[in-house]
Amino acid sequence: MSQQAKKPLNSLQKAVNKEVSVRLKMELEYRGKMINVDPYMNVILVDATEYSGGNPSATYGKIVIRGNNVLFIKIGEGFRI
Amino acid sequence: MSQQAKKPLNSLQKAVNKEVSVRLKMELEYRGKMINVDPYMNVILVDATEYSGGNPSATYGKIVIRGNNVLFIKIGEGFRI
Amino acid sequence: MSQQAKKPLNSLQKAVNKEVSVRLKMELEYRGKMINVDPYMNVILVDATEYSGGNPSATYGKIVIRGNNVLFIKIGEGFRI
Amino acid sequence: MSQQAKKPLNSLQKAVNKEVSVRLKMELEYRGKMINVDPYMNVILVDATEYSGGNPSATYGKIVIRGNNVLFIKIGEGFRI
Amino acid sequence: MSQQAKKPLNSLQKAVNKEVSVRLKMELEYRGKMINVDPYMNVILVDATEYSGGNPSATYGKIVIRGNNVLFIKIGEGFRI
Amino acid sequence: MSQQAKKPLNSLQKAVNKEVSVRLKMELEYRGKMINVDPYMNVILVDATEYSGGNPSATYGKIVIRGNNVLFIKIGEGFRI
Amino acid sequence: MSQQAKKPLNSLQKAVNKEVSVRLKMELEYRGKMINVDPYMNVILVDATEYSGGNPSATYGKIVIRGNNVLFIKIGEGFRI
Repeated sequence: MSQQAKKPLNSLQKAVNKEVSVRLKMELEYRGKMINVDPYMNVILVDATEYSGGNPSATYGKIVIRGNNVLFIKIGEGFRI
Repeated sequence: MSQQAKKPLNSLQKAVNKEVSVRLKMELEYRGKMINVDPYMNVILVDATEYSGGNPSATYGKIVIRGNNVLFIKIGEGFRI
Repeated sequence: MSQQAKKPLNSLQKAVNKEVSVRLKMELEYRGKMINVDPYMNVILVDATEYSGGNPSATYGKIVIRGNNVLFIKIGEGFRI
Repeated sequence: MSQQAKKPLNSLQKAVNKEVSVRLKMELEYRGKMINVDPYMNVILVDATEYSGGNPSATYGKIVIRGNNVLFIKIGEGFRI
Repeated sequence: MSQQAKKPLNSLQKAVNKEVSVRLKMELEYRGKMINVDPYMNVILVDATEYSGGNPSATYGKIVIRGNNVLFIKIGEGFRI
Repeated sequence: MSQQAKKPLNSLQKAVNKEVSVRLKMELEYRGKMINVDPYMNVILVDATEYSGGNPSATYGKIVIRGNNVLFIKIGEGFRI
Repeated sequence: MSQQAKKPLNSLQKAVNKEVSVRLKMELEYRGKMINVDPYMNVILVDATEYSGGNPSATYGKIVIRGNNVLFIKIGEGFRI
């Protein structure tokens, strides 16, 4: 895959050290500061909160999420309708 | 895979900066402006609306969708029957 | 994989610009004109109709279907018994 | 993978132009003349009949089945007990 | 992967032409003479009997099982408790 | 993948010989001392406790967890809300 | 992947000819003497007992388990709480 082709994943790098929300396939969401991410969407979050079905269910000092479980990563603002 | 073989994915590039709808495997749909896409169908959408079961369920300033979850990307017009 | 080995997928190329039906794993079917296909069965359909459980459920001007979701592509005639 | 290692898949080539039955993971079976097959078990069947739960459910002039859905391909005779 | 690393799969070769039982992920089991096997556990069985939930459900003259569906291959003796 | 790209996984190396919690996809969690980890998130834990649905269900002297089952690895402190 | 990266899987080699317990994704467990294992966690067990939901359900003289089904391999002692 050329460098050109990797652009969506490279642009994730710009969100490093920002607050993001990582949505997984199984109705789980993790919000926190993304201190690291790679092209497989393996992500490290610090000071993260887990939401299960929209409700906070746990907090984590530091977690390494395996990329293959990721549905999407939200960078900008958003809210539930 | 030769350049020839990649054509369906390359033609997605022509839809960059247009409104698209990304349908995922789990009954979720994301409509917004596609500012980036790669051959794995990793997609960046801005000003996106999430539809769950056909109803709007959330809005997002910017999301990076992991390509392996994508069922299809709609480029042209369409409507539900 | 040798060129020889790719034959089933290469023969799909002969169906470009013909009407096909793309059956996905999750009881969904898409009928339309196939304007592009690659060896992963990534397919572009135009003027497509979606069938869910055998009934038309939506129409699409242009969709790019991700090949890994495809069960089979029907090229010749056929009917339900 | 050496040529030696590919033998089960190569031996499928000997069944080209014979009647076979392709069993998929989701209780679907396709019987017809196999005019093409590759090492991923991508298969082209002509004059095919689809069986769902053992009963005929559709006929197809020509279908290209994506190999990753295949459970097994039956070449010899057989019957249900 | 070195030759060393492939040993469990290579040792399957010693069971060629013996009676084996191939257990699939979806509660299906196939018993017969294994005339061919490769490192992906693609297997050819002749004179095979299918067991569904422990009961015989079909017989097959010759089947080619796609390796990715295999849970395990039983070579030695065994019985249900 | 460049060395740069592997950073989230490489940083897991710093947690070797520390207490971690490995969450799997199927509601299982394993807490123990991580004595080894690789870029696929294959992990060796010693003196591990298994939690099923939040409750302790088993203890293990030493287990090797296959990375493809991992949802995330928790390194820092955290608690359920 | 460098030799360094493979360490968790290489260390499995040290458990060859010892009693292990192989836990699969679908609530199945196989206990026996591991006479062979490779980096994909393909495993050969002899004199193995199958446990389904914690209860013994079958015995096997020799089985070759396909690595992709493995959740974890237990090497040290352990018990259910």
